[in-house]
Amino acid sequence: MKSAAVIGLGLIGGSLARELSARGIRVLGYDRDEASVRAALRDGGIHRVLNRGLEGIDTVDVVVIAVPVAAAPDVLRIARPHLGGVRLITDVGSTKGTVGSAAQALGIGERFVGSHPLAGDHCSGWNASRLGLFDRARVFLCPTADTSEGALALARAFWQVVGAQPEIIDATEHDRRLAWTSHLPQAVSTALALALARAGIAHRELGPGGRDMTRLAGSSPEMWTDIALDNASELGNALDRLEQQCQQLRTALAAQDRASVQRFFAAGQRWNPPGG
Amino acid sequence: MKSAAVIGLGLIGGSLARELSARGIRVLGYDRDEASVRAALRDGGIHRVLNRGLEGIDTVDVVVIAVPVAAAPDVLRIARPHLGGVRLITDVGSTKGTVGSAAQALGIGERFVGSHPLAGDHCSGWNASRLGLFDRARVFLCPTADTSEGALALARAFWQVVGAQPEIIDATEHDRRLAWTSHLPQAVSTALALALARAGIAHRELGPGGRDMTRLAGSSPEMWTDIALDNASELGNALDRLEQQCQQLRTALAAQDRASVQRFFAAGQRWNPPGG
Repeated sequence: MKSAAVIGLGLIGGSLARELSARGIRVLGYDRDEASVRAALRDGGIHRVLNRGLEGIDTVDVVVIAVPVAAAPDVLRIARPHLGGVRLITDVGSTKGTVGSAAQALGIGERFVGSHPLAGDHCSGWNASRLGLFDRARVFLCPTADTSEGALALARAFWQVVGAQPEIIDATEHDRRLAWTSHLPQAVSTALALALARAGIAHRELGPGGRDMTRLAGSSPEMWTDIALDNASELGNALDRLEQQCQQLRTALAAQDRASVQRFFAAGQRWNPPGG
Repeated sequence: MKSAAVIGLGLIGGSLARELSARGIRVLGYDRDEASVRAALRDGGIHRVLNRGLEGIDTVDVVVIAVPVAAAPDVLRIARPHLGGVRLITDVGSTKGTVGSAAQALGIGERFVGSHPLAGDHCSGWNASRLGLFDRARVFLCPTADTSEGALALARAFWQVVGAQPEIIDATEHDRRLAWTSHLPQAVSTALALALARAGIAHRELGPGGRDMTRLAGSSPEMWTDIALDNASELGNALDRLEQQCQQLRTALAAQDRASVQRFFAAGQRWNPPGG
């Protein structure tokens, strides 16, 4: 791999561009925010700027779409006529079903592998991007039904180059699992922040535990609106189960039912033993 | 202040004993766990061991009760006949209404000030105790209706000696606020852990965000059962409001109502802006 195009220079796309450039790979970049593009050029994260029509990306080996989940299918459509000899098209979104289907519908399923690096945090934008973000990070790879062995091998190699650890998983199974391991924690952090806000509590009143529990609430609303809507059914189910757990505790508290309250906290500790 | 007695040598009591000893204050200690007592003697955290009847504590200036919230009134009752010339009796529990009432009922309200240092974490026991735990930590001080000015001044000085920053607050108001800032985050962390456990998700499958959100679930079930039951009404109310926030998101997701989902995440970010 000698060259790559990164569409979207936020936390993930920006960090990828930095890693690739640092390894001597030629990087073309695009972002709808011109200040980010200028900063990426200045910082040496990208070597050439792409225009909005993405003309000229046919010269690269790998195209990475690093835009919010809902925008990815549009970017695929814009890129489609210019994909020439590109060997791999991938993305970095937190949901994998929709984008994979879009790639197949556009007839590029053979060269498409969905990617989801578990490497974000609550910051965003080029200024938050950095070297080392993918170091030992898990990255889920979701081939389409048509993905070629060559494209999948290239996707694996691509992520290993930037330090990540690829793991292949079916897109539907990915979205089901991530509803629990990632989207539910995010939604609960925001729900807790809103409950506190309505109760007149300011963030600075929290101790270390409360601050940890509401840190994710600071994440990008645009990004999470897309993810939550794209995975609405699975996330709705997970939220429902979380509410049930809260209700059980609430019922036990109202009845001063010590045994049930004890079971609640003990079961939580068994699942996540301190130092475990 | 030349001497103190610390009843309960867990994370908070043990750390207090270490701080006091390190400042040349003579510390008498008791814990129902004999191994903790031996370790505290060995590590120089305490100088003399008290027996279960707490005889001999009348020789100290300050008595600190650092046992789970539900056990504190019993310890006050056991200590009551031996309080002689003790100038201040305090505790370190996360709820303040019940323990203050117990002190008044025992006729020691004048010398009692409830304390709540915001300095715990999800670890517990003597082995988790350490110097520096109270460094710049907020500590709420809740006088009873009968607390003397001298006792309150001594409580303030006592916590400043170990590095904490005292703040006086009414016990009822304390318990109401802590239901939101501390007890709700703990309950939600455990509820999330249980929802994940029931969905067959293992803790190691989480990313950094999910790990933060379930860290508190590893806290001591004994301690939190007591706190939750002691503050059941306020915590129940807070849980109810959290559930309502989850339901609102769930309803918006089911309707693919982008504007509402966006408002949900945007309001959370406004309350806790990244870097804010």
